[in-house]
Amino acid sequence: MTGASPDAPAPRRRGRPSRRAASEGPDARTRILAAARTEFAERGYDKTSIRGIARAAGVDAALVHHYFGTKDEVFAAAVEVTFEPALVVHTVLGGPPEGLGERLARFFLSVWEDPATRSPLLAILRSALTHEAAAKVLREFVLRRLLERIAAELDVPDATFRAELAASHMIGIATLRYMIRAEPLASADPEEIVAMVAPALQRYLGER
Amino acid sequence: MTGASPDAPAPRRRGRPSRRAASEGPDARTRILAAARTEFAERGYDKTSIRGIARAAGVDAALVHHYFGTKDEVFAAAVEVTFEPALVVHTVLGGPPEGLGERLARFFLSVWEDPATRSPLLAILRSALTHEAAAKVLREFVLRRLLERIAAELDVPDATFRAELAASHMIGIATLRYMIRAEPLASADPEEIVAMVAPALQRYLGER
Repeated sequence: MTGASPDAPAPRRRGRPSRRAASEGPDARTRILAAARTEFAERGYDKTSIRGIARAAGVDAALVHHYFGTKDEVFAAAVEVTFEPALVVHTVLGGPPEGLGERLARFFLSVWEDPATRSPLLAILRSALTHEAAAKVLREFVLRRLLERIAAELDVPDATFRAELAASHMIGIATLRYMIRAEPLASADPEEIVAMVAPALQRYLGER
Repeated sequence: MTGASPDAPAPRRRGRPSRRAASEGPDARTRILAAARTEFAERGYDKTSIRGIARAAGVDAALVHHYFGTKDEVFAAAVEVTFEPALVVHTVLGGPPEGLGERLARFFLSVWEDPATRSPLLAILRSALTHEAAAKVLREFVLRRLLERIAAELDVPDATFRAELAASHMIGIATLRYMIRAEPLASADPEEIVAMVAPALQRYLGER
């Protein structure tokens, strides 16, 4: 809106961000990411468009392209933002080794119990289960990085395999509790789940 | 086709099966179920219609209504057929109690490793994760029955909760291995998975 030089060269390339949008800088990037997260969460992967994200963020669609590229790349960035808390797993992994399973189970459930993080996580999982492009992002980007980080902190053989088995258990719990809402798991107290699940995670992550 | 009395009373109710179709009896029912399973597996819950199932089965749509009712009810019946092997869990639960986790893990993986059963299972899981109607069928019908049957055979407190935690682990493994295909789990040898997962299942199902 302000500060754009009216006589700057303006090549007619399609998808180039407008001066107004480009001038909005890092704030616009943050707004686009937030909008992308919401759009993917609310509409699902299929029905989300670059145009819709741009509209929700109050920027040109060209600026979304400019910062992130394709829809898949916007999705990857939105997923990364969502998983940011999970990517700082070393805080979970850092405590006494014998409490690792319990800390991980509690951390995982706390992320899912919070509606603000649950909704984008649900959207990501749903998208990954129904769209190969989204599955690829989760598989090749998020999960791989996450599992490698966890595995790097573990002192067990086959650490990545074990980390993935632990992840599979937690993803299964999220699926039954939050997506399918099957009882008795759906209504169980989180601490009751932690108490039951922690030893299984501990075995994967802490036993040689 | 044969044996339909030409002067049978024929109320003009919409959705009444044609005499030709109705006369096909149990074979038609089986064909409809097989077609429903294939249609739901290939098209997903959303894009599957009673009309499409009828066409695939070579019967009137009215006959599908006649045998099964609504689309949700056809889905429930198709899911039940798919889960039939899983519903005879007493064969798995019947052996020595100390091998229960291992037998269950091996049985579960063998069902998913077989492409003939994997494809409808994938379709059911995908449908349940994206459509509330399908989730309801899985939650209220299949999972509840399955968990109750398993729990009835267990000699542990909170048997249904424990059975569901075991199920959640297996569903999570199926999600990462067969749906998202995340490595190293996607390429792991089934027996390698059984060896790692069996003690976790054993703890849920066999320990007081």
